[in-house]
Formats: sequence, structure tokens, C-alpha cells
Amino acid sequence: MFGLIGKMRAQAGKRDALLAILLGSTGNMPGCLSYVVAKDPADPDAIWITEVWDDRESHKASLQLPEVQAAIKQAMPLIAGFDSSTEIEPVGGFGLPGS
Amino acid sequence: MFGLIGKMRAQAGKRDALLAILLGSTGNMPGCLSYVVAKDPADPDAIWITEVWDDRESHKASLQLPEVQAAIKQAMPLIAGFDSSTEIEPVGGFGLPGS
Repeated sequence: MFGLIGKMRAQAGKRDALLAILLGSTGNMPGCLSYVVAKDPADPDAIWITEVWDDRESHKASLQLPEVQAAIKQAMPLIAGFDSSTEIEPVGGFGLPGS
Repeated sequence: MFGLIGKMRAQAGKRDALLAILLGSTGNMPGCLSYVVAKDPADPDAIWITEVWDDRESHKASLQLPEVQAAIKQAMPLIAGFDSSTEIEPVGGFGLPGS
């Protein structure tokens, strides 16, 4: 499996609007096993996204999906920056299909 | 919802053994919505755990479960350190019950 842990920063006061866009585009992404969108309680502008995919190719292909492309276009003006993006290799756990 | 993103470090050469313990204790934890155990592909000793709970209290209570206590006892000798633990507030996404 392939995974990512990412932290981004919304423009001041725009986190809720950005969260709505991110949540609106997570529905139907082939190969996506988990996609969690979260606030950082210690930072009013920060958003964390933790993702698990069946493999790297599924994640890469998702970025070309029309609804994801549309969400990225909508979201970019509200994003102040990307703080970190860590690649992980999920090996199992609870809450993943088949676990 | 309540969540955590944690990075720990296994003793050199002990990551697989530590992963097995972590994976063995994720089964039946009331209030746990997602618990993903992952390798860090860039660091042979590092493990990432991303968790989502229905609330903080469920997470706290899980630490008292007999099987979790037993896993912690088994795991501690294999853990070299805890690099980071970030609290997050999941707001939704894909792959969570009810999403």
C-alpha cells in the first residue's frame, strides 16, 4: 500500500472553505482506501490529510480525475502553503478494507 | 472526532517485530474509526501510526484495554524512541464509518 501524511496551510480565515472543497472531492477515487481530512487544533489555519491507497499508481491517477482537478483549481487560491508531505508505506491496521 | 499522527523509532533491526505487535492489537478497540500502521520508506527503523477515534475519551480508554496494555508491555523493549505525536481533529473524508 502507498500512503501520504500532508500538512497544508489555508489563507487566514479560509480553512473552513478549504475543508469544504477537500471533503467534497473525496468520494469516488479508485484505489483510495482511506482519506482523512482534519483540522490542526493547535493552528487555526492548518489542515492535515492522511491518505492510504492500494498503490502509488492509483494515487497518481487520482490527480487526473476531473472532479479532483476541479477541486484543486478551486482550492489553490485558498491555500497559503504546503508545510510537509511524508510518504508512508501502510502495512495494516484497523478500518482499512479487508482489515 | 479525535485523531493522532505519531512517529516512533524501533530499535535497529526490530521494526518488523514491532510492527507485528502493533498490528496484533488493533482489532477490537471501542470508538476506533481508523488505525493505520505504516513503515517509513525513507527510514528503516521508523513507524508511522495515524489514528481516528470517535472522541478523545475512547482513545484514552483504549490505553487501559488488557490487550493494548499487553501489547505496550511487549512493544516497549523494541522501541528506541517517539519522534513526534500530533493531535488532529478529523472532520471527514473517505473510508471512515459513515463517510
